[in-house]
This record gives sequence, C-alpha cells and structure tokens, in this order.
Amino acid sequence: MPFDPTSLTYNEAGLIPAIAQDAASGEVLMMAWMNAEAVARTLETGRVTYWSRSRAAFWVKGESSGHVQELVDFRYDCDGDCLLVLVQQTGPACHTNRRTCFYRAVRGGEVEELMGPE
Amino acid sequence: MPFDPTSLTYNEAGLIPAIAQDAASGEVLMMAWMNAEAVARTLETGRVTYWSRSRAAFWVKGESSGHVQELVDFRYDCDGDCLLVLVQQTGPACHTNRRTCFYRAVRGGEVEELMGPE
Repeated sequence: MPFDPTSLTYNEAGLIPAIAQDAASGEVLMMAWMNAEAVARTLETGRVTYWSRSRAAFWVKGESSGHVQELVDFRYDCDGDCLLVLVQQTGPACHTNRRTCFYRAVRGGEVEELMGPE
Repeated sequence: MPFDPTSLTYNEAGLIPAIAQDAASGEVLMMAWMNAEAVARTLETGRVTYWSRSRAAFWVKGESSGHVQELVDFRYDCDGDCLLVLVQQTGPACHTNRRTCFYRAVRGGEVEELMGPE
C-alpha cells in the first residue's frame, strides 16, 4: 500500500510527535514534531526534518550544528498519531551536547544526571 | 535534587508525552500522555500510569488487559517536556496485541507491516 503522509493523524496545530531512536544502539535520542510536509521531506531526502514550533520553520536536524540524523527506518504507530524514526545520528542529538536529550532520571525521588556534555 | 512532577512542562491540556521503551530489548513500545498526577502515581507505585485523553481518566496500563508496565527507570528530556519510561512489559504493549504500537514501516514509499498480533 502506498504511504500518504496526509493519512496520519495530526493535532490541532497540524503536528505529529516524532521519536528519534539510534538505529544501532537502540537509545532514544529525542522527541520533536513534524507536520505532513516535514514527513514527506524526511522520506524524500533521507535527512530527518522536523517542524520547529519555536521558530515556526522546517528544521533539518543538524543543518547548523552538523549533528545530522540520517533516516534508517520510518515507522508509525497503531493510531497513526505518533512516529518513530530510526536514525544514524552524527554527534550528540541534544542541543546541550549530550548524546541523548533524556539524560536525567528520577531515582528514589531524586534527580540524577546520567551523562555530561560530549 | 528532589524531583517535583509539577516542575515539568505540560501542554495547554496539562499533559506531557511519555515514551515507553522495553528496558531489556530497547524496543520502543508506545507513546501516551501523562498529567502531573499520573507522573506522581507512576513514580509512587512503580506501575506506569497514563492519562487517557479519550476516557478522561487515569489509565493504569494493563489494568484491564493484564499487559502491565513495571517501571524500571523514569527519565525526562532537556526541555522537561517529554518523558521516557523504561519498562518491564508483560504481554504485548499494543491494543492490537502486537508487541509494539510501531509495527508499520514506510519503505520505498510503501507501507510494510513488521509483525502480526501475538
């Protein structure tokens, strides 16, 4: 069945959450948002492209930092309202220069930092 | 530093997306939503608890199906607006009885189903 980006379920702002996972390590790197055009661009170019809500603009991940995400596999969930992109990540995924955005844990009621900037 | 669930950033509906990842396999299982009270209950009980937007009620994952998620680690991202819960998943995570909700891929412009119901 051919895939149509507009067949996904977008929220009232026309966006769908996209989880980026390192295809090699399985580590969850970040979550950001795409609109239908960002989905189409990601599939067409193989370069993961989000929609930046703060800048209201397409955000080709790594375009300025060099920390690009090459698309390895594009998946979506049962309800069609969440994406999972498996990526080959160059450099740290997080703008804090950490490997993943999920670098803090709550353990025994306390915040623990799991890694520092690279 | 003690963790305060209300210190996270919730959307206009008071919700934050939570990604569930299998702690053993690394597989991303599903994405659902929590409010501050669901975050607190998840941490207190060790049983992953979402907020069901369709039912407008707390949703202790697996309460009716038996497909519970035991919390292994609770993490949150750089912006404090997305959660990652590492879980021990009993049975399939998806309501379609598949191991993960992300069972469809787009490859060469076509939809591929990666697994069937268990």
